[in-house]
Amino acid sequence: MQRPTIADIARRAGVSKGAVSFALNGRPGVSAATRARILRVAEEINWRPHSAARALGGARADAVGLVIARPARTLGVEPFFARLLSGLQAEFSSQSIALHLMIVEDTQAEIEIYRRWVSERRVDGLVLIDLKVRDPRIAVVEQLGIPAVVVGGPGRHGRVSSVWADDRTAMLSAVEYLAVLGHTRIAHVSGLPEFQHTQRRSRALRDAATRLTLPRARSLHTDFSDAQGAAATRKLLAGANRPSAIIFDSDLMAVAGLGVALEMGVAVPHELSIISFDDSVLAQLTHPSLTALSRDTYRFGVQAAQAMMAVLADPTKTKNHKTETPRLIARESTSPTRN
Amino acid sequence: MQRPTIADIARRAGVSKGAVSFALNGRPGVSAATRARILRVAEEINWRPHSAARALGGARADAVGLVIARPARTLGVEPFFARLLSGLQAEFSSQSIALHLMIVEDTQAEIEIYRRWVSERRVDGLVLIDLKVRDPRIAVVEQLGIPAVVVGGPGRHGRVSSVWADDRTAMLSAVEYLAVLGHTRIAHVSGLPEFQHTQRRSRALRDAATRLTLPRARSLHTDFSDAQGAAATRKLLAGANRPSAIIFDSDLMAVAGLGVALEMGVAVPHELSIISFDDSVLAQLTHPSLTALSRDTYRFGVQAAQAMMAVLADPTKTKNHKTETPRLIARESTSPTRN
Repeated sequence: MQRPTIADIARRAGVSKGAVSFALNGRPGVSAATRARILRVAEEINWRPHSAARALGGARADAVGLVIARPARTLGVEPFFARLLSGLQAEFSSQSIALHLMIVEDTQAEIEIYRRWVSERRVDGLVLIDLKVRDPRIAVVEQLGIPAVVVGGPGRHGRVSSVWADDRTAMLSAVEYLAVLGHTRIAHVSGLPEFQHTQRRSRALRDAATRLTLPRARSLHTDFSDAQGAAATRKLLAGANRPSAIIFDSDLMAVAGLGVALEMGVAVPHELSIISFDDSVLAQLTHPSLTALSRDTYRFGVQAAQAMMAVLADPTKTKNHKTETPRLIARESTSPTRN
Repeated sequence: MQRPTIADIARRAGVSKGAVSFALNGRPGVSAATRARILRVAEEINWRPHSAARALGGARADAVGLVIARPARTLGVEPFFARLLSGLQAEFSSQSIALHLMIVEDTQAEIEIYRRWVSERRVDGLVLIDLKVRDPRIAVVEQLGIPAVVVGGPGRHGRVSSVWADDRTAMLSAVEYLAVLGHTRIAHVSGLPEFQHTQRRSRALRDAATRLTLPRARSLHTDFSDAQGAAATRKLLAGANRPSAIIFDSDLMAVAGLGVALEMGVAVPHELSIISFDDSVLAQLTHPSLTALSRDTYRFGVQAAQAMMAVLADPTKTKNHKTETPRLIARESTSPTRN
């Protein structure tokens, strides 16, 4: 079907194109009766102002962009992303804003997409996730001059707003809880070392280990997949000086790690305590159920979208918005150490 | 930052706007050296052809639209949607196509979004999910003349392509398996009755019940939420003639139903067999693990995206693409009946 044009309206209403233009733009030059007839015809044939024409006049795209540089299949099984996306979508949708999504290989490809979307006016703003140490996206976003919100923080992101949770305090609370239970050999199966949130958690573990005198505390890096989470757990449990407790950086990896412990005949929690850094129905359904650092990830997504709406409303006002700190919920996977 | 214009390039390169226009459009009228200088400046200041101007010329939006009329919070915990979306995104992203997403209240709002996106050229095509009986979206999409793919089927959708799985055969296989185990009191906790996939499953249960002489077979409708799944299970287990087996229309509802059985002291599988219509890590992690109708939902999403790409390449060629039939995987939640 061809898009209806002003000429189509003019023909159907039996008036000139100029009259249609006057009527549609609310300008004088046509009678009230003619204006009403023109508007009725426009409605009948589903005429809308052309977004292209509107964009030339500076109108909005009514969409916010989100580019994800992680494997697509992982996204489908990782509860964190599904819930973050739901929260973002719910809030944007309530404002009639679409979420414009793409998955890419790496940060360079992500930046190329940003440039394209901005120059082609596909989006009014960008939500950035998985911030890296010295992340090149911040400078690009500032140079492009597009409103942006970083999910994660609380670093300085120039003029870019951020929404973040205090991972450091959450990690400290988990380590301190394990220390109270008598654990001294604590391991951390973490995400990618270039991510800021991974570094913050690893640093928190090191700091707590120094303060509480836990010389064997250490972080093993993974790509967040259940496969690498399982492999890291096997390595830890097969080695000398097996840890008595492991903190996993996601519920998906914690569940995979629990599976490895069962497979290797290591009893949870009596020989190994497990804490998941992220709670979900996954963590609650396992047997034993998992002690977890819990927060409302859906709400986190809503808050990120709200921060985006605030920046869209007034791009000069940026702020760091701190959300609730994940809090520890003790379930069946942790117990006092026996040695 | 203002979007760079042809005037900016002209000023920086020290030439006229006309010369820039000639150079950028590959037309004669400027020397090779000037053309090279102009293109270098355009690159430096990140100039791109204006999407609005391109759209006026009929260029593509490089995006496919998906509108979901289900509660956002449910989407975040339902593994089916997360994996379907991942598959869609992975395939579209590999073709540099964005997924343009919005969540709405109902079908009327969904249609309004379709009209807006099409008239504003936000998307090149639409993916339709949760098809209803006599779904009004099919006629709207045909009238709008936009390429579309229906996920679910296998009904006649006019000139609209579809990607579907044989829910009927899958449901029959589950009922026959339960009948072989000796179950005669079989209940079905289903989704929304206006959905075609719900109706197909309920009808398959009725047909199997007639053939196998299972007079107490019945479907209870829900909105797919874990809350209504739990409520339906409570009603079934508290009533006279308690079913000896329940088939749930999603893994999320099956897990909720299992929780209700435990809470009411009904032993699974010895007093109640449970089958989940959809498999996932959720179904595998419960205790007992759930017998499930299983398929690769990620791949289902990829196939839907591929069907969309085919229609975008040639809108005159529509087809019904049948994907793998979900097959029954027996786990710990089903056993022969004792009575």
